[in-house]
Amino acid sequence: MMNLLQIPQELELRLKDTMQRGDAYDGKLWEAMEYSLLAGGKRVRPCLLMLTGQSLGAEPEILWPFAMALEMIHTYSLIHDDLPAMDNDDYRRGRLTNHKVFGEGTAILAGDGLLTLAFEIMGEAICRSGRQGDLETLKRQALCQAYMAYCAGTKGMIAGQMADLASENRQIRLEELQYIEFNKTSRLLMAAMVGGALLAGKGLPETDAETAALERAAGKIGETFQIVDDILDVESSLEELGKMPGSDDKAHKATFVSLYGLEKARETAAAMTEEALKDMEFLPGEAGEELRRLALSMVDRKK
Amino acid sequence: MMNLLQIPQELELRLKDTMQRGDAYDGKLWEAMEYSLLAGGKRVRPCLLMLTGQSLGAEPEILWPFAMALEMIHTYSLIHDDLPAMDNDDYRRGRLTNHKVFGEGTAILAGDGLLTLAFEIMGEAICRSGRQGDLETLKRQALCQAYMAYCAGTKGMIAGQMADLASENRQIRLEELQYIEFNKTSRLLMAAMVGGALLAGKGLPETDAETAALERAAGKIGETFQIVDDILDVESSLEELGKMPGSDDKAHKATFVSLYGLEKARETAAAMTEEALKDMEFLPGEAGEELRRLALSMVDRKK
Repeated sequence: MMNLLQIPQELELRLKDTMQRGDAYDGKLWEAMEYSLLAGGKRVRPCLLMLTGQSLGAEPEILWPFAMALEMIHTYSLIHDDLPAMDNDDYRRGRLTNHKVFGEGTAILAGDGLLTLAFEIMGEAICRSGRQGDLETLKRQALCQAYMAYCAGTKGMIAGQMADLASENRQIRLEELQYIEFNKTSRLLMAAMVGGALLAGKGLPETDAETAALERAAGKIGETFQIVDDILDVESSLEELGKMPGSDDKAHKATFVSLYGLEKARETAAAMTEEALKDMEFLPGEAGEELRRLALSMVDRKK
Repeated sequence: MMNLLQIPQELELRLKDTMQRGDAYDGKLWEAMEYSLLAGGKRVRPCLLMLTGQSLGAEPEILWPFAMALEMIHTYSLIHDDLPAMDNDDYRRGRLTNHKVFGEGTAILAGDGLLTLAFEIMGEAICRSGRQGDLETLKRQALCQAYMAYCAGTKGMIAGQMADLASENRQIRLEELQYIEFNKTSRLLMAAMVGGALLAGKGLPETDAETAALERAAGKIGETFQIVDDILDVESSLEELGKMPGSDDKAHKATFVSLYGLEKARETAAAMTEEALKDMEFLPGEAGEELRRLALSMVDRKK
């Protein structure tokens, strides 16, 4: 079983391996993709996928291409999110954003490239199964890819990014904030956990109660993570500045704390964590343990 | 058999059907995607796919999702290509470009959305085959999707767009121009013709000589199309202005005419057309005839 220490290390090697040399004419495409893809990070989504899949009996070799694809999808969304026309960020985690280093045109294409590369990687894995005559694995991989496309897509992550963009300079209510969080963040966590389950031979959420439980758990982990983020922002603001954030907060942007209230936010986070862990209770073995540990660490933290 | 008149009409209905209503929070995502996707056009790529597939015995119902996906991929690339950071075009075919109507952020997401939607559509088709227990069709669809990802991707269309961007304000040579054309244009024509063949049960180009012939044909059609485009530009310039384009041509951007010379360009276009038609000779039936007619019309035109 590959655990939480090994997965990011192995992932790094495999991602690096996917980053090809550019050729004589494709500019800085590969440098730009690599810059963002190999920027480090906790690699939460691949970990969720690998642990869920392993817990349910899938071989790591079957899971890896999809863990990598998921990280590529996540990375492409960050590159596009940072663009001037979107969130317009010059820095991400203390590093210059992709477009600040390579220019906007290259950053747009690097994002497009990573998104398509995710499907190229999954496609290669599927072709391999085809060549080996392994139609059962091929079917599982095809379902996983389809589910990932759905999560990353027009009724998933992209809907969330669009809603985020559309909410600029407006006071939004709880339902809208939840929509944004669910689609921008939870959808890819679902892709990870449901994806791992599909690769292990489980059915889609609509027909398989256990996969449905994982889908629910991922949704709750995602929302709880965001609530906790907002709580920690408030707590550190109280500590550092002796005041609630908001006085200087540009446009008093809505958060889970401003909409729930601090006490209710804490209670909601705690309750959702309980429910998520219960939904994931059935996952067997060391990998199941490790997964629940990971989920807990995402939501039970002091930043 | 669906022919060249029927395919675009049917495609229009099916594409419209895919365009869902937005919801309360996803802004103008669906309007923006629809604006570009239903902008009309000859729908060459879907036609190439539907005719190739039908000629080789595939049922239209199997082919349609992939024809639609291909048109979505083509459309997304146009939206991103027009962006200020890329070609910076205000108009495309006499209509305002996507970002001029909806803003840059929405246009970026509309492009991302269409690209992902293409994989959602293909994914749904694959899931359907899975539910029906039709593993043979599932395998063909999965191979087709993998091949399309490759053509649209980092060693395909995106490499071409990157090379086009990187060639700005430089005098490029023939090899670089061919690289740009091959990747920006021919790759999606390959996706169409090889994709149609794969859906009909043919093997990938590396193992199936007939699929390889179609791949070659698509490559030649693409390059010939571009050469003819450049020839027609020169001919209309000579007619209208009594001079070769270039005197006012910003930066004297390299074309197949400027690099081959007008006479050699004409000869090359004629020779490649011959070769492409020969590669496509084996395609049987009315659909095969219609396909060769389409290919000829793409390269043998007076604009």
